[in-house]
Amino acid sequence: MSYRHNLQLTADKKLRHFLTIEGLPRAVLTEVLDTAESFSSVADQAVKKVPILRGKTIVNLFFENSTRTRTTFELAAKRLSADVLNLNVSVSATSKGESLLDTLSNLEAMQSDMFVVRHNKSGAAQFIAQNAPAHISVINAGDGCHAHPTQAMLDMFTIRRHFEDFYPLKVAIVGDILHSRVARSQIHALTTLGANEVRVIAPKTLIPTDIQTMGVHVFHDLKRGLEDVDVVIILRLQKERMDGAFLPSEKEYFHTYGLTQEKLAFAKPDAIVMHPGPINRGVEIESIVADGPRSLILKQVTNGIAVRMAIMSMAMGSYSAAREET
Amino acid sequence: MSYRHNLQLTADKKLRHFLTIEGLPRAVLTEVLDTAESFSSVADQAVKKVPILRGKTIVNLFFENSTRTRTTFELAAKRLSADVLNLNVSVSATSKGESLLDTLSNLEAMQSDMFVVRHNKSGAAQFIAQNAPAHISVINAGDGCHAHPTQAMLDMFTIRRHFEDFYPLKVAIVGDILHSRVARSQIHALTTLGANEVRVIAPKTLIPTDIQTMGVHVFHDLKRGLEDVDVVIILRLQKERMDGAFLPSEKEYFHTYGLTQEKLAFAKPDAIVMHPGPINRGVEIESIVADGPRSLILKQVTNGIAVRMAIMSMAMGSYSAAREET
Amino acid sequence: MSYRHNLQLTADKKLRHFLTIEGLPRAVLTEVLDTAESFSSVADQAVKKVPILRGKTIVNLFFENSTRTRTTFELAAKRLSADVLNLNVSVSATSKGESLLDTLSNLEAMQSDMFVVRHNKSGAAQFIAQNAPAHISVINAGDGCHAHPTQAMLDMFTIRRHFEDFYPLKVAIVGDILHSRVARSQIHALTTLGANEVRVIAPKTLIPTDIQTMGVHVFHDLKRGLEDVDVVIILRLQKERMDGAFLPSEKEYFHTYGLTQEKLAFAKPDAIVMHPGPINRGVEIESIVADGPRSLILKQVTNGIAVRMAIMSMAMGSYSAAREET
Repeated sequence: MSYRHNLQLTADKKLRHFLTIEGLPRAVLTEVLDTAESFSSVADQAVKKVPILRGKTIVNLFFENSTRTRTTFELAAKRLSADVLNLNVSVSATSKGESLLDTLSNLEAMQSDMFVVRHNKSGAAQFIAQNAPAHISVINAGDGCHAHPTQAMLDMFTIRRHFEDFYPLKVAIVGDILHSRVARSQIHALTTLGANEVRVIAPKTLIPTDIQTMGVHVFHDLKRGLEDVDVVIILRLQKERMDGAFLPSEKEYFHTYGLTQEKLAFAKPDAIVMHPGPINRGVEIESIVADGPRSLILKQVTNGIAVRMAIMSMAMGSYSAAREET
Repeated sequence: MSYRHNLQLTADKKLRHFLTIEGLPRAVLTEVLDTAESFSSVADQAVKKVPILRGKTIVNLFFENSTRTRTTFELAAKRLSADVLNLNVSVSATSKGESLLDTLSNLEAMQSDMFVVRHNKSGAAQFIAQNAPAHISVINAGDGCHAHPTQAMLDMFTIRRHFEDFYPLKVAIVGDILHSRVARSQIHALTTLGANEVRVIAPKTLIPTDIQTMGVHVFHDLKRGLEDVDVVIILRLQKERMDGAFLPSEKEYFHTYGLTQEKLAFAKPDAIVMHPGPINRGVEIESIVADGPRSLILKQVTNGIAVRMAIMSMAMGSYSAAREET
Repeated sequence: MSYRHNLQLTADKKLRHFLTIEGLPRAVLTEVLDTAESFSSVADQAVKKVPILRGKTIVNLFFENSTRTRTTFELAAKRLSADVLNLNVSVSATSKGESLLDTLSNLEAMQSDMFVVRHNKSGAAQFIAQNAPAHISVINAGDGCHAHPTQAMLDMFTIRRHFEDFYPLKVAIVGDILHSRVARSQIHALTTLGANEVRVIAPKTLIPTDIQTMGVHVFHDLKRGLEDVDVVIILRLQKERMDGAFLPSEKEYFHTYGLTQEKLAFAKPDAIVMHPGPINRGVEIESIVADGPRSLILKQVTNGIAVRMAIMSMAMGSYSAAREET
């Protein structure tokens, strides 16, 4: 969809908002990964800070509570030396009956530079970006079942750091594809970056009917789906997003789709295991796998800071300028 | 009242606390506006920060929840490079049964430099200032129905930026004058700064009986009250502050006192429209007016940052000293 | 217990975690007091900040709400120029069913440098320190009835500033010794620093049966216990930690164990009075004593910042290095 493309990029194809992976050219995704690479050394410095966004105001606009995601954005912003405002919107403005657009207008009038938006409605970040003035960048930190593009990019960063190249890789995504904004963003990222094959593994009830149009292969059997893959991405079972109709019980889910050592043996011997967290131990993944040598789950968390620093500085157009200064 | 005068000013007439406009000399109000003018360019800089209050500790002491007001004070403090502590007092100390004065003594002992106080009791900020030690400045961020002086000053700043001078201006304040701390502070500011005429427009039940002692003209008819005015200030209908006795319904209120394009036509052709926000669309103001070319509502929000930076730095005596350094 | 000793200290006897006073050598406690002394002048500077922990990330991990303690740690961290994350853990991660260890692993993966832990279970900070990777320091900000070592150290700092030496001092601790983590830490600190005599004064029901093994003298009568003491430490009556069985009423408690001027007269003429706060006026202490000339209660709060700055910078090994730089 070209309007999204236009919305996210400037005329000279630089990142302006970061709302969805869909429609972003490979060059931009690669630039995110390269920029994140340069930031990942910041955490090893004695002073874990760069002055790139000093004096900028970043507003964490969370309409849906998520301490973990907010925390990583807050840390990324602080390591870029920005000032951060945390607003839990449901608690504040709306209790005085103010509309979303009025809240946004006011935050804009306070000369904020960036909104990091989390919302339980699909399309919320896009709506906000469409209504934001020119000087504000919007980053989607998860909207409904639609997209979670910064999570997908930190996954791509983790994969690239491990395997260097996407071309030869077979990647399996296991779990509730239907409700997962993470899966949707990962599929777009993997196909854009040229992965050899993307598979989704789930019961029929947890796969969207039109999934094949996204260029993936569908498996309902975990063992067959894992055969020969390089990367296994386990999704979190979002209990709160499902009702009884979709799946019978956690126990049965674990039996059929939970990743165990035995099932992981069907993947390539050097396959890596990833999960966006927080993990439900013994539901979608066995502890011995989650904590084992092939798990990169905590590396993903670490990489999340560098990737978010990259996306925030790119969207503010401050990365190259600041680098020249230093 | 001279004791207030003394409380807010040092022996050499410099601002020390900012509690109410009442009793402050015109020279001090003008200094606030002039200082705010110099700060309003800070937001246009690449780095939106000045080091004036670096190393100072400012405590946002909110006994009444107000994300919007707290946010503007927090942003103003951060742009002055101060450290900010946000304390929602009802939730914390008082749950352990500590008295207000003990809470204050403890914050003082932590070497705070300023309290920004919001409280639902009139006189709270004054009480705190009277009991604070010499090194602490107190800013009133709204106390009961009494005063909201920083709001009034950002309104004055917005008016002066538009019209340059107060002398020729006729200003109408429309709405619930009786319960409005904003109106009270605006009236004091406008008369001190020498506005030609200040009018209040409201039903009899929403006007204090002794209002004429404040030097204003009272109107009960919106159209007649708006005739020939330069500035229309619409107050927020504080539904939570009123009970059924005062006014019959929102619909009827809008019909009689809501500002519409048609009614605005009775004011001068170049009259401006202001509102302290958040606005109740279709209750006290029509959307087409609130979002129209004569509305300065969002400019008020922007100006609020510079004005609060001015008041905070003046009250800490840091403004002139810091300017000399830079 | 040597394992605690090892856990808290590096091979060359430098502070690494700060979990309990028990087992820490006098040299380390003295270094804390000396370092705090050098920090206590920071608050008198125009810019109340030192760059010692710039770029470090300190996480306030509060499983038990305590605005006062969190605030002092936050201020101390900010005055050391660190970045601070405030996490109220009960509200966030655990609501998604994540285990404590998974929450910690994630915070570690975000390259935090220090956890300041408050928990209602004894041993929680120790458990976290045992499970933390090498680069993370853990500070105990109060765990159950076990320890509150930073509070004890600020008390020692307050005593040393007043009397210079511990050797000649007789110190009485009055109140609910049984449930008090503060008392336990104070007793360890006083005996390690060589106080002449430590007394505990309380009804039998509020004294642990094995208290004498800690080297203290037990008194049940307040007047007799206060005879000839230099320091009177009043504990807060933790109403929430007790049930009806322990003591009959606040009124009766005040009558028997509340510190009044009349009872204080039994102590030395120049005895000082301390209390960890917040005080219950008229329950464990009379206002005229709490606010009187012999009370150092607010000095304790002020000293708490410098002492916490000292402990945080020592635990991060940053103190001496940074001092050399400056």
